[in-house]
Amino acid sequence: MQKPSIPKGTRDFTPQEMANRNYIFNTIKDVFRLYGFQQIETPAMENLSTLMGKYGEEGDKLLFKILNSGDYMNGLADDELLGRNSIKLTNKISEKGLRYDLTVPFARFVVQHQNEISFPFKRYQIQPVWRADRPQKGRYREFYQCDVDVVGSDSLLNELELIQIVDEVYRRLKINVVIKINNRKILSGIAEIIGEAEKITDITVAIDKMDKIGLEKVNEEIASKGISDEAIAKLQPILKLSGTNAEKLNQLKTVLADSEVGLKGVSELETIFGLCEAMKVQTTIELDLTLARGLNYYTGAIFEVKALDVEMGSITGGGRYDNLTGVFGMEGVSGVGISFGADRIYDVLNQLNLYPETSQEQTRILFVSFGEKELMYCLPWLSALRNKGVNAEIYPEPAKMKKQMSYADNKRIPFVAIVGETEMKENKVMLKNMKTGEQSLASLEELVELV
Amino acid sequence: MQKPSIPKGTRDFTPQEMANRNYIFNTIKDVFRLYGFQQIETPAMENLSTLMGKYGEEGDKLLFKILNSGDYMNGLADDELLGRNSIKLTNKISEKGLRYDLTVPFARFVVQHQNEISFPFKRYQIQPVWRADRPQKGRYREFYQCDVDVVGSDSLLNELELIQIVDEVYRRLKINVVIKINNRKILSGIAEIIGEAEKITDITVAIDKMDKIGLEKVNEEIASKGISDEAIAKLQPILKLSGTNAEKLNQLKTVLADSEVGLKGVSELETIFGLCEAMKVQTTIELDLTLARGLNYYTGAIFEVKALDVEMGSITGGGRYDNLTGVFGMEGVSGVGISFGADRIYDVLNQLNLYPETSQEQTRILFVSFGEKELMYCLPWLSALRNKGVNAEIYPEPAKMKKQMSYADNKRIPFVAIVGETEMKENKVMLKNMKTGEQSLASLEELVELV
Repeated sequence: MQKPSIPKGTRDFTPQEMANRNYIFNTIKDVFRLYGFQQIETPAMENLSTLMGKYGEEGDKLLFKILNSGDYMNGLADDELLGRNSIKLTNKISEKGLRYDLTVPFARFVVQHQNEISFPFKRYQIQPVWRADRPQKGRYREFYQCDVDVVGSDSLLNELELIQIVDEVYRRLKINVVIKINNRKILSGIAEIIGEAEKITDITVAIDKMDKIGLEKVNEEIASKGISDEAIAKLQPILKLSGTNAEKLNQLKTVLADSEVGLKGVSELETIFGLCEAMKVQTTIELDLTLARGLNYYTGAIFEVKALDVEMGSITGGGRYDNLTGVFGMEGVSGVGISFGADRIYDVLNQLNLYPETSQEQTRILFVSFGEKELMYCLPWLSALRNKGVNAEIYPEPAKMKKQMSYADNKRIPFVAIVGETEMKENKVMLKNMKTGEQSLASLEELVELV
Repeated sequence: MQKPSIPKGTRDFTPQEMANRNYIFNTIKDVFRLYGFQQIETPAMENLSTLMGKYGEEGDKLLFKILNSGDYMNGLADDELLGRNSIKLTNKISEKGLRYDLTVPFARFVVQHQNEISFPFKRYQIQPVWRADRPQKGRYREFYQCDVDVVGSDSLLNELELIQIVDEVYRRLKINVVIKINNRKILSGIAEIIGEAEKITDITVAIDKMDKIGLEKVNEEIASKGISDEAIAKLQPILKLSGTNAEKLNQLKTVLADSEVGLKGVSELETIFGLCEAMKVQTTIELDLTLARGLNYYTGAIFEVKALDVEMGSITGGGRYDNLTGVFGMEGVSGVGISFGADRIYDVLNQLNLYPETSQEQTRILFVSFGEKELMYCLPWLSALRNKGVNAEIYPEPAKMKKQMSYADNKRIPFVAIVGETEMKENKVMLKNMKTGEQSLASLEELVELV
């Protein structure tokens, strides 16, 4: 007999867990829709030709690949087989893979459906993705992403609206967060000024350690990467950047005075900060020059959201890209988007115990079963409640009272209706409030009211 | 440059299609919850040891199998490789597969979580499944199932509630359907009476052709399967069964008088019909002895639902099973369940054009963009509307009026707000009803009211 289990890195979700997850998904969806974003879905499987080469060499390895159907070994040459080169053979026996994120499928979707959609295209997509990563705490092989993007518009209003969405989602979820923001053009400007364009990653990695190791060590680390003394001298004002966002931007304007692209980046951030202020965005927004997610990919604003009251990596992130669809033959489509990490948000809410007590998905009332006669009395009551939109159920067979009550407890059903001779005679039910233990006779009208 | 495409048998869903699909899913979910069913989810990937051998030899072939990660060819012997036996090699290079239905994962779930769930366990599950079937009209390689099951109760009340759920779902979706019902015990009884237990499938296949080919040809077909003349003579009253459900059951009582299990089946159906009548189920329920879905699997009632106004296979089906979890080591768990085929329902609604005109997911109002000053005027209006829960958006950049209007048309946005000097001076907007073309000046309060 098999003892059943599931693949490592994957999870089942019980009803209580699903209610909690749906609370997150529904909150996010409601806000997306408030801002005019519309849902799309793409298949779990994509052609490997769509996926391969989009996530780097490491990403290619982490794709889950689907074995071709039928007699896939047929036609393979002896030396191919005996070479035992798993990577080469994969191309021969597999042509589909599970999606790795929602971005590449979205780019593919936009190109494939370009004549059906109207631009600017504001879409959201909430689906699982799969990665053959080594599973560990907070890292799963199947997890949900909630992506929201606008493509076909380079207006900074879109950046504002994404920030407003973050602000609103976390306000509703009651999670305290900080939004970190940077701009790829500022990073390009810095690299330009110091004449070390290709070292920009080394520099941001070093800057990132400022709080921990201090200015001196940061300078040492930068020097160790082969960056010239002259360039390091020019970097000093950037390393010492401090104050409010406005003050930082002012200092950057001086430093980047000779870089057109750098000044463009500063000006974009000024516009975004100005719009956020005008729109009274509540969440703290922090200019963070060390923020450099997917450097080769983003071309403008870069965002990252961190939860303040719990140790957890970034729970939302994204930015502006100018050529998402180029790889599929559609050039010049600018877009900006962010992705909410639903599984990390789920873990944060679990840690902080921030779920609402009641869920719309729960049963509101359980009718206790005694026997045939009581059953036939209760059934029309059940129908009447359901017709009023009340989630209601009856224990399906006469069982011990204790068993039926603990069923109600386990399902967190707030009310139980008990029916005996007296109740039937008076055309009422005995309604028990499971939280307070209070009992009272109720007519159907009273029941609808109370439940 | 790659021309992007998706694997055959899979589909993308555009925003309009998603709104239509969500209408189906939400309708089904709402009804499931009204009856106290709770949602679970299981991973897309299951261990092949969980899936293999559960769907017959053909089913095993139709499973999508995931290639092991890493150097999966390593360690395979020369003769294994050169044998090129795809089936044998699959066991060596793949240990996970995509779920084929929701029933086996559910059985696995119940066994694995038996100590966390309270029985009777009423669960629903709405997730995609994958089958490497040859794609054709109405048959996809990725499609959604919506399963609803009660396990751990053999009360016929559960059968009633599933019928009520079917009745309510299709009433809400406005699809005219007939519910066909049979009972596995009656089929066993028939086999017992005529002494041809193992020929029951041949017999039901033949009975199924009665309408098309008539009694004589049906008898010929049965005889051709090697069934004795005596048995065929005993079958005649069953083949000639006619009248109302009650009349049919009465005739069956006579025919099956010597079969205990057969009479049990008749009595179960009588109870179910009685309950349906008491609860005023509106949908026609038809006793259909040819209904024999998954004969080896079901042990009591068998259901199937057909749409009346469109050519389409069964759109919902299910039945009672007495040993769902036995294969995973948990014996004696009786259950009953049905599965709604969301993709077929989607096709039916498309054919009959039965979607509601407006969807809660749509944007209600678009603000037209003219320039900086108008933008700053409009943004607080947008916020105010969103705070009232109104889905609202602004065209993100100043573009030609015609372009903005056709954007609203394409997204089926019912209202457009236009702002110029006059409106700003009066603290109003010009509201255009996109359906009627009517325009009127509106204050914020009036806007919330109208939209």
